[in-house]
Amino acid sequence: MLILGIDPGLAIVGYSLLEKRDHHYLVGDYGVISTSTESSNTERLQHIYSWLLDYIKKHKPDVMAVEELYFSKNVKTAIRVGQARGVILLTGAQANLPIAEYTPLQVKQAVVGYGRAEKNQVQQMVKILLKLDEIPTPDDAADALAVALCHGNSLGLNRKWGG
Amino acid sequence: MLILGIDPGLAIVGYSLLEKRDHHYLVGDYGVISTSTESSNTERLQHIYSWLLDYIKKHKPDVMAVEELYFSKNVKTAIRVGQARGVILLTGAQANLPIAEYTPLQVKQAVVGYGRAEKNQVQQMVKILLKLDEIPTPDDAADALAVALCHGNSLGLNRKWGG
Repeated sequence: MLILGIDPGLAIVGYSLLEKRDHHYLVGDYGVISTSTESSNTERLQHIYSWLLDYIKKHKPDVMAVEELYFSKNVKTAIRVGQARGVILLTGAQANLPIAEYTPLQVKQAVVGYGRAEKNQVQQMVKILLKLDEIPTPDDAADALAVALCHGNSLGLNRKWGG
Repeated sequence: MLILGIDPGLAIVGYSLLEKRDHHYLVGDYGVISTSTESSNTERLQHIYSWLLDYIKKHKPDVMAVEELYFSKNVKTAIRVGQARGVILLTGAQANLPIAEYTPLQVKQAVVGYGRAEKNQVQQMVKILLKLDEIPTPDDAADALAVALCHGNSLGLNRKWGG
């Protein structure tokens, strides 16, 4: 199963491609989609849409795992990043991908085994579980690997508990 | 000039088609796109996208005027409605429409002449300015007419001030 992991954002969208084979993972790719603050809001959304749609068509993942947004109070930021996340969900749907959504708590729980883990602990576990030489950078790409890993591990869990 | 006015939302998107001819307006159409709470978030976004894209292709407006979101504190709602607004902006861009964005304050200023006008005052002015027999319902459709009217009036203002 090829999992496309997405850490949503407007300025930076983290993405990862993770292949799950039985009980181990192969890292296919990871990186970020960046949009310029000099472009209009709509141009930035369109850049994310067309880049991601091309990427999905090229790599043909089986599923898209998207992290949910968490903001404690900045409503303006929430709206702006929410706009980008809406476009990301639409892109997956337009490409006929099943979409799984995970909260930051679920991602931490699945990767570190502890829902209140620090960012650095998540990154360390991503490095260890995926047998990488270094912690993946930037953070957004590491987060996208974490959400893909969360989906992969949740599948295992579902199978286990689903009998 | 044919203006497509949009009052963004996830459960209900208000839309309007307003034709500006010199100094008067013709109401082409108005209504709402509804999405079901029984559908997934992604399915609702996709319904808005495909409905709106078809509508634009059919009616060929010259511009899309979209109201900006205003939430004072509910961050979760802001993210959900932000996701829908992002999809709406993308839809306009995919259809190659120029997109104008107006804050609620700008809409009230343009339609009532007073940025802190009550909702009911805006609806009354929409009815009067567009020579309608009744206040358009539901509210979201009336709001979509108001933002289209705001765009039409702003064009006049730009022309006036732009020399």
